[in-house]
Amino acid sequence: MKEWLDEVPWDAQGLIPVVTQDFASGRVLTLAWMNREALKKTVEAGEAVYWSRSRGKLWRKGEESGHVQKVREVRLDCDADAILLRVEQVGGIACHTGRESCFFRKLENGRWVTVDPVLKDPSLIYTK
Amino acid sequence: MKEWLDEVPWDAQGLIPVVTQDFASGRVLTLAWMNREALKKTVEAGEAVYWSRSRGKLWRKGEESGHVQKVREVRLDCDADAILLRVEQVGGIACHTGRESCFFRKLENGRWVTVDPVLKDPSLIYTK
Repeated sequence: MKEWLDEVPWDAQGLIPVVTQDFASGRVLTLAWMNREALKKTVEAGEAVYWSRSRGKLWRKGEESGHVQKVREVRLDCDADAILLRVEQVGGIACHTGRESCFFRKLENGRWVTVDPVLKDPSLIYTK
Repeated sequence: MKEWLDEVPWDAQGLIPVVTQDFASGRVLTLAWMNREALKKTVEAGEAVYWSRSRGKLWRKGEESGHVQKVREVRLDCDADAILLRVEQVGGIACHTGRESCFFRKLENGRWVTVDPVLKDPSLIYTK
């Protein structure tokens, strides 16, 4: 029998884009990437683990900030090759800038305008 | 002055992943891709235009199905290189399978299970 991990349409780099959404507020928090191992660990641990393309390694969300994402639901799309993670965002902050969501800039009259507040100063989040 | 389109971190293929969310229900509908021209047209027309990677051409969402996505908001993320489109989904159906969202399969006990209903038979949507 085909394992559920084999049904994921991994791309040429072995990755898939992952949309992460807050289960309670419905806010889209991040777009990140997973490889097979990251997805396996995410499901096993019940907490989001991504593949950092810039650092070239697994990245347990919240490992430094404490802003862990507890997985409530994992979904797969029809064919556009993406995963949707619905999570409980610990601390209510997903972005390294201290904001709820990474999507805090909005297009207004031909300009990207920051429209969401910083909830916590990043220097107080990343204290190591 | 740098144009807003120049601030988008296009990848090596000139593309960016786009998360599209229903403005009213909050459902994540699709993950698709845009190039510069698609994003420009999306903003100008106020309706989502994507780049189809499989067909290698611009794709005006709803051009066949009538299920146009009226853009209410365009957001850019901090650095993970993605766009969030918040839309009014005409017909309440984003997926070519006749479902509200493309993310209709949920991981349950090691299996991808279809959990969302077909709202309209695709043969009644694609009549051309």
